[in-house]
Amino acid sequence: MIKTTPRILSGFMELLPSRQVAFNRIKEIIKTTYESFGYSPLDTPAMELSEVLLAKAGGETEKQIYRFTKGDTDISMRFDLTVPLARFVSMHQGELTFPFKRYQIGKVYRGERAQKGRYREFYQCDIDVIGSETLDISYDAEVLAIIYRVFSRLGLSRFKIKLNNRRILKGFFASLKLEDKVTEVLRIIDKLDKIGIDNVKAELQKLSVAEDAVDKILLFVSQKGENDEQLSFLRSLGIDDENFNFGVEELEKVLDLTSFYGVPKENVSISLNIARGLDYYTGTVYETELTDIPEAGSVCSGGRYDDLTGFYSDKKMPGVGVSIGLTRLFSQLLDKGMIKPCACVNAVVAVLPVSESEKESVLSFAELLRRNKINAVSFTEDKKFKAKMNYANKIGVPFAAIIGESEAKSNSVVIKNMQSGEQNTLSVAEAVDFLGAENKELLSESPLCEIAG
Amino acid sequence: MIKTTPRILSGFMELLPSRQVAFNRIKEIIKTTYESFGYSPLDTPAMELSEVLLAKAGGETEKQIYRFTKGDTDISMRFDLTVPLARFVSMHQGELTFPFKRYQIGKVYRGERAQKGRYREFYQCDIDVIGSETLDISYDAEVLAIIYRVFSRLGLSRFKIKLNNRRILKGFFASLKLEDKVTEVLRIIDKLDKIGIDNVKAELQKLSVAEDAVDKILLFVSQKGENDEQLSFLRSLGIDDENFNFGVEELEKVLDLTSFYGVPKENVSISLNIARGLDYYTGTVYETELTDIPEAGSVCSGGRYDDLTGFYSDKKMPGVGVSIGLTRLFSQLLDKGMIKPCACVNAVVAVLPVSESEKESVLSFAELLRRNKINAVSFTEDKKFKAKMNYANKIGVPFAAIIGESEAKSNSVVIKNMQSGEQNTLSVAEAVDFLGAENKELLSESPLCEIAG
Repeated sequence: MIKTTPRILSGFMELLPSRQVAFNRIKEIIKTTYESFGYSPLDTPAMELSEVLLAKAGGETEKQIYRFTKGDTDISMRFDLTVPLARFVSMHQGELTFPFKRYQIGKVYRGERAQKGRYREFYQCDIDVIGSETLDISYDAEVLAIIYRVFSRLGLSRFKIKLNNRRILKGFFASLKLEDKVTEVLRIIDKLDKIGIDNVKAELQKLSVAEDAVDKILLFVSQKGENDEQLSFLRSLGIDDENFNFGVEELEKVLDLTSFYGVPKENVSISLNIARGLDYYTGTVYETELTDIPEAGSVCSGGRYDDLTGFYSDKKMPGVGVSIGLTRLFSQLLDKGMIKPCACVNAVVAVLPVSESEKESVLSFAELLRRNKINAVSFTEDKKFKAKMNYANKIGVPFAAIIGESEAKSNSVVIKNMQSGEQNTLSVAEAVDFLGAENKELLSESPLCEIAG
Repeated sequence: MIKTTPRILSGFMELLPSRQVAFNRIKEIIKTTYESFGYSPLDTPAMELSEVLLAKAGGETEKQIYRFTKGDTDISMRFDLTVPLARFVSMHQGELTFPFKRYQIGKVYRGERAQKGRYREFYQCDIDVIGSETLDISYDAEVLAIIYRVFSRLGLSRFKIKLNNRRILKGFFASLKLEDKVTEVLRIIDKLDKIGIDNVKAELQKLSVAEDAVDKILLFVSQKGENDEQLSFLRSLGIDDENFNFGVEELEKVLDLTSFYGVPKENVSISLNIARGLDYYTGTVYETELTDIPEAGSVCSGGRYDDLTGFYSDKKMPGVGVSIGLTRLFSQLLDKGMIKPCACVNAVVAVLPVSESEKESVLSFAELLRRNKINAVSFTEDKKFKAKMNYANKIGVPFAAIIGESEAKSNSVVIKNMQSGEQNTLSVAEAVDFLGAENKELLSESPLCEIAG
C-alpha cells in the first residue's frame, strides 16, 4: 500500500505529551482563576456565519479569515473570542443576568503570514464583564486583579501590569488641539516600543503635528515613576479637559480598589504610553509585561469599551476585559526555558509487576490508588522487567511502585524514587499515604520557573 | 447604523451559562477520570491537510467533511479524533513511549443533514492505548474499567457495558461457511437494534445466506443471559475454529481482569449481537447503554484494532480505545431531564454590599474567600439592594453574603441561604469555614440525576 506522509499544516502548534501536560496545567490555572472570581463559562462554535462574524471586520483582519462555503452557507472560522461574545450577548440579552461575567478559553484562527512564534490556530483565554447600559468602575479593578492572580498562580512574581486610561490620552490630545488626529496619533504612539522614539517623532511630524506638540507628546508618553508620581505629573499639567480629569479620576479609583483585591503595588504601573488598539477601547487599558521576556511585549491585554454590541443591537453594553494569547505565550516561555520539565502524564506513579504472576496485584493496587484520588498508570505488557522500568523512566513519573512475588504475598509494594534511585518496601496502606502526599505536592506545583533576576 | 441579526449556524450547539456549567462539569469528570488512569493529554489541530486526513476516508464520511482551500492549501476540518491520533503516532513514533496511552477531548466537524440531536460541531472524548507491534489483552480490561469509572463518577449506576469480540463473530461465520461474506453479514447484524429481526432476516436472505444459517445467526445474536451462561453457550456450539476459540478466550480474560479494576459484574454484559463498525475493529468491542435512555443507543463505544497507522506507516500498531460523543449525549440527558439545574457560575456565594460604603469590605471578603479556595462572585454596581439580591438569585448561587454598615464595623457578614431564605450573621472566620464546607459539597456533587428505576 502506498503510505501518505503524516504531517500537519504549517503554522499550527502540536505538542508532544510532556509539553502538552505543561500547556494544560497553565490552561487549567487560567481557567480555575477565572472561575474563582465567579465568571460563567462560555463555549461558542468555532465557525460562524460570515455575514454575522464579519459585520464589523475589515482590512487586515478580513484577509486573514479562514472563510469558505459549505453547500449554500458562507462560513468563517472565528478569529477572536470578542466578536462571538458580542453576538452571544446580543442574541441572549433577555436570558442573561447583568453584569454578565463570562470567560472563554478556546482556539481561534488567523491565516497570518507564517513566522516564528506566530500561529494560525491559537488559544485565547478571554475574560470580560458586560454591563447593561452602565458598568461600575470597580470591575476595571477586578479585571486587573484577575490578571495579577493568574500570573501569580502560574508561579511568577516578576511581571508588571501596565495601566492607562484612554480618556486621559483623549483629553491630553484635545489640550494640544489635536482632537481631529487622536486616532492617528494614538496609532503611532502604540508603536513606541516597537519602532523607537525617533521613528515615532518622524511619523508624528509627517502628520503635521507642530514641533512643540511633538515634544509635549514625547515627554508625556516617556514619563516614568511610581504610580503616585505619575498621578502628580498628570495633575501638574493643569489640563482643563473633562475627559482628561475624568480619566485621571478613574485611574486613581482603579488603583485604590485593586488593594482590596490584594494586588501588590509593585506589580502595577501607570504607563502613559500604552493605548491598545484604536477605536475600540474607551477607558482603562491594560498590558502585561513579563520581566524575564520583555521582547514578548504584552502577554495579557485589554481594557474598557463603551459599546460591545453596536453591530448587532441598539442597547448600549459597556464592558471591560482582557485576553491571554496562550499558544504564543507558551512558545515564548518554552524558548526562554521557563517551562519546567514535566512527566508525560498527570500521574505520580507507575505500577509495575515483576512478572506475569503479579499482574492482578498490580491492577488492584493501581485501582486502590485511584480510589484514593492518586492518578496511577499501570504497565501490564508481558516484557522483561528492565523494559518496565524503562517505561516508568521514559514517561517521567516521579515514582515507580513495584510488586514482585514476595510483595504480592505480604500485601506490600516497593516504592522507587525514579530520580534518586532510592527504594523502600512499604505496606500497601503506607504506600497509599506516601503517594497521596506526593501527589498533592505534584499537583500544587507551578509548571513555570522564573529566570533568576 | 444597520444592525446585523445575531445568529449562529444551524446544527451547532451553544449553551446558556447554567447549562454550560453542567456541560463543563461532565467534561471535567471525563477528563479527570481519563487522567486518573495515567493517560497523556493530546491536542491536535482542528484542521489538517486534506491529503493526510482523508488518506483513508471515503464515501459517506468524505461527503460530510468541511473542506476548503486557503491560498494553495487544501484543508479539512477533522471529523473524528482517531485519524489525527494515527497521524500523530506515525509522525512521532520515535519520540513516544509505548504502550502510548493518550486521551483527547475536542470538537470535531461533520456536515451531516440537520436533524434533532445531531450536531455538525460536537465534542468527542477519546481514550486509547496504542502498542508497538503488540498490546496485552489486559488493556482491553482497562478500557472497559475506564468506561465504568466515567459513568459511575457521573453519578450513574443504571448502565450496561456491552462486550463482544470480533474474532468470535469471524469464527462463527466461518463455521457457517460464510467467511467471504463476513463484512456484509456483520454490517446487517450491526443494524439489529435499529431495524429489527425481520428486516435483518430479509437482508441476510438477499445476501443468499441459506435459511438454516440465517436461523443459526439469529439464534446466536439474540442469545441472552448472565456472562457465565453466555460463555457456556459459546462453548456449547462446539465450533472448531482458531479465531472463535481465541475470541472466547480473550472475552473470558477481559471479564476476569475487570474485577481487579473494581468493575461490578452487573454493569458488564456479553452481547453477541454487537459488532461495531466494519473492517476497523479486530477483537474486543464495547458499547454502553444507559438504562434510562435506551433510545440513545450506545453512548460510549469502541474496541480493539490491529493496525491503527496502516495508511501512514509500515509499523504495526495495535490499539484499544473508546469514544464518548459528549455533545449528543448531553442533549439526550437534557431531553430526559437528567441534568440537574445548575448555577450560572462555579461559585457557591455572591458577596453583596448593602450600600456603596461597604463596597471595599465586599471586595476584601470576596478576596479572602478566594484565598481559601472558595469561588466567589462580587456585585459592586451602584444599585438598590433589591437589585443586588435579584442578581444573586438569578445567577443561581446557593448563598449570598451580605455586608451592611454594622457587619463592616464588626467584621462580620450575613449569610443567606438563597433557597430557604434563612439568614445568619457570622464572623468573617466562621463564614469562611461555613462556605468552605458548602463549596466542597457543591464541587463533589454530580451534575446528573437518574430517573427512578
